[in-house]
Amino acid sequence: MPSLVDPVANKTDEGNNRTDLKAPEPEHCPGTESEEAGKADACQGCPNQDICASAPKGPDPDLPLIKDRMKGVKHKILVLSGKGGVGKSTFSSLLGWGFASDLDREVGLMDIDICGPSLPKMMGSEGEQIHTSLSGWSPIYVSDNLGMMSVGFMLPNQDDAIIWRGAKKNGLIKQFLKDVDWGNLDYLVVDTPPGTSDEHLSVTQYLKESGVDGAVVITTPQEVALLDVRKELDFCRKSGIKIIGLVENMSGFVCPNCKGESFIFAPTTGGGKALAEEFNIPFLGSVPLDPRIGKSCDHGESFVEEYPDSPATTAILDVIRQIREAVGDPQEDEDDDMDE
Amino acid sequence: MPSLVDPVANKTDEGNNRTDLKAPEPEHCPGTESEEAGKADACQGCPNQDICASAPKGPDPDLPLIKDRMKGVKHKILVLSGKGGVGKSTFSSLLGWGFASDLDREVGLMDIDICGPSLPKMMGSEGEQIHTSLSGWSPIYVSDNLGMMSVGFMLPNQDDAIIWRGAKKNGLIKQFLKDVDWGNLDYLVVDTPPGTSDEHLSVTQYLKESGVDGAVVITTPQEVALLDVRKELDFCRKSGIKIIGLVENMSGFVCPNCKGESFIFAPTTGGGKALAEEFNIPFLGSVPLDPRIGKSCDHGESFVEEYPDSPATTAILDVIRQIREAVGDPQEDEDDDMDE
Repeated sequence: MPSLVDPVANKTDEGNNRTDLKAPEPEHCPGTESEEAGKADACQGCPNQDICASAPKGPDPDLPLIKDRMKGVKHKILVLSGKGGVGKSTFSSLLGWGFASDLDREVGLMDIDICGPSLPKMMGSEGEQIHTSLSGWSPIYVSDNLGMMSVGFMLPNQDDAIIWRGAKKNGLIKQFLKDVDWGNLDYLVVDTPPGTSDEHLSVTQYLKESGVDGAVVITTPQEVALLDVRKELDFCRKSGIKIIGLVENMSGFVCPNCKGESFIFAPTTGGGKALAEEFNIPFLGSVPLDPRIGKSCDHGESFVEEYPDSPATTAILDVIRQIREAVGDPQEDEDDDMDE
Repeated sequence: MPSLVDPVANKTDEGNNRTDLKAPEPEHCPGTESEEAGKADACQGCPNQDICASAPKGPDPDLPLIKDRMKGVKHKILVLSGKGGVGKSTFSSLLGWGFASDLDREVGLMDIDICGPSLPKMMGSEGEQIHTSLSGWSPIYVSDNLGMMSVGFMLPNQDDAIIWRGAKKNGLIKQFLKDVDWGNLDYLVVDTPPGTSDEHLSVTQYLKESGVDGAVVITTPQEVALLDVRKELDFCRKSGIKIIGLVENMSGFVCPNCKGESFIFAPTTGGGKALAEEFNIPFLGSVPLDPRIGKSCDHGESFVEEYPDSPATTAILDVIRQIREAVGDPQEDEDDDMDE
């Protein structure tokens, strides 16, 4: 029976940049990126020998450059979810606006969804172009204290597909960390694509030395979403990323006509709250489905500022408050945070 | 200004399996997989020279094996969408059940969402294990005429993350096409992950010689979804994949209390219908948001059989009818197709 069993087939690819090996590494493999790669005794007869022997050796020379660039960034937060369409980008944009509503905080928003960048649209900055200076690529500033970077700013035509295999995506993510002049930031929020593949491995690897505060994991209530989220939690565990907490998005829907609540994505197995308890991770709250959130995203507006009275706004602000507490930067006055 | 401009940075990766090049290919590059790779005059001084020189040469020897395996498959249909969470897997499962409700048709369902396989859960076959025989890996049969294949059947533990970079995912997709004993099929439905990256390039490339009937593209009505779908349409155009049509999923929501309709994902820019007109592709219909679809998926049941009276069922059956017509296999009696 073909099965993905440990240790070879199912091992984490992390730390191994070789994506073109012809066969699993042999038992006494010296490491595909070590100085001995392709030359050690164990390499004799290995189908990968030529590939390893000709590959660049030693640690990635770009890592110290990334570390240097990230020195001025106090808190790095990944927004993750195994599944697509649960609201990662929406929530990343809400976090960006939320953190930046405190004018004493400098915020960066980095979009590493290379094939499906939605943040420029959601932040109302579509069509902007990146400028460079001696200190690197300048982020696109949505407001004085909120800068962002996305492949969406680099497309000659917004409808062009970005048809890239993993290695090319990894290269651009590295540039976003190494070449962008982020300056001194209180928060860098990283919006990721669905899955547990190249983008996730690379950003984790590139930021390892600088340190990531943790991940905010987004889900919707139905079991097919939780299924993928469990895999993402396993990824975090294996990659040593702390879970700041789980957010359940699109929870209930209140009919604008009759005020009756419907569960569009029914929590057949208990939803996000039960999952958080099962995995013993903080549950940051349920954000009800408010169609105006999607509309705000389509128009590039800040939902929490446009609709301060929505129950969704209350839930979102509560999540932001908990995240700030979790990273050791609690809000000074909770009630005033939108008025500053 | 850093920008992805043709021809080098923005070119399609298709046909180029080298995922580890250190630099863009030089102007007179003989092709990274050609016999001359790493040896031609243009290769002198190119940072990729060593990598290319040591790589395997010539056409992929597995392609004829795939072509042979696919000889018995009449219609190959890709289910695509730039964005995650719009219902690709849900719709793939509906197509599988829909095609197979005609007992004269043999149907296969192939899940190439390697990091987030949801089809086993949706088809009620979670926990099954793949068996092999002399003729290859046996698909998991959901019913007599509906077989499926997914990485979900290969996991020692359902919650394990599949932390694979692109090249490894490509290898498994190739095995799904080359090693699975699909037998003679009328339909092979391929469920894809979000994006335009490794999985999409690989399946297109592997099936090129066998021929793909076309792609069914799924979207939801809001602009941030259409944004990614436009990129997917560009991918299809560049890869030479015919668009069978566009389906708008999760269109309106009818409140079960007051029967009032709400637009959960508001079509701020005209939704799927306007997009189909803009791109001059067939619009196959709008499927209203019925929370029972998600519940059926969570329970591994066929929604159209469980809820024949739902307006969503009517819309789904109409989409299936149009797809069968588009591939030249029209239903004999539209009204009887669920009763056979």
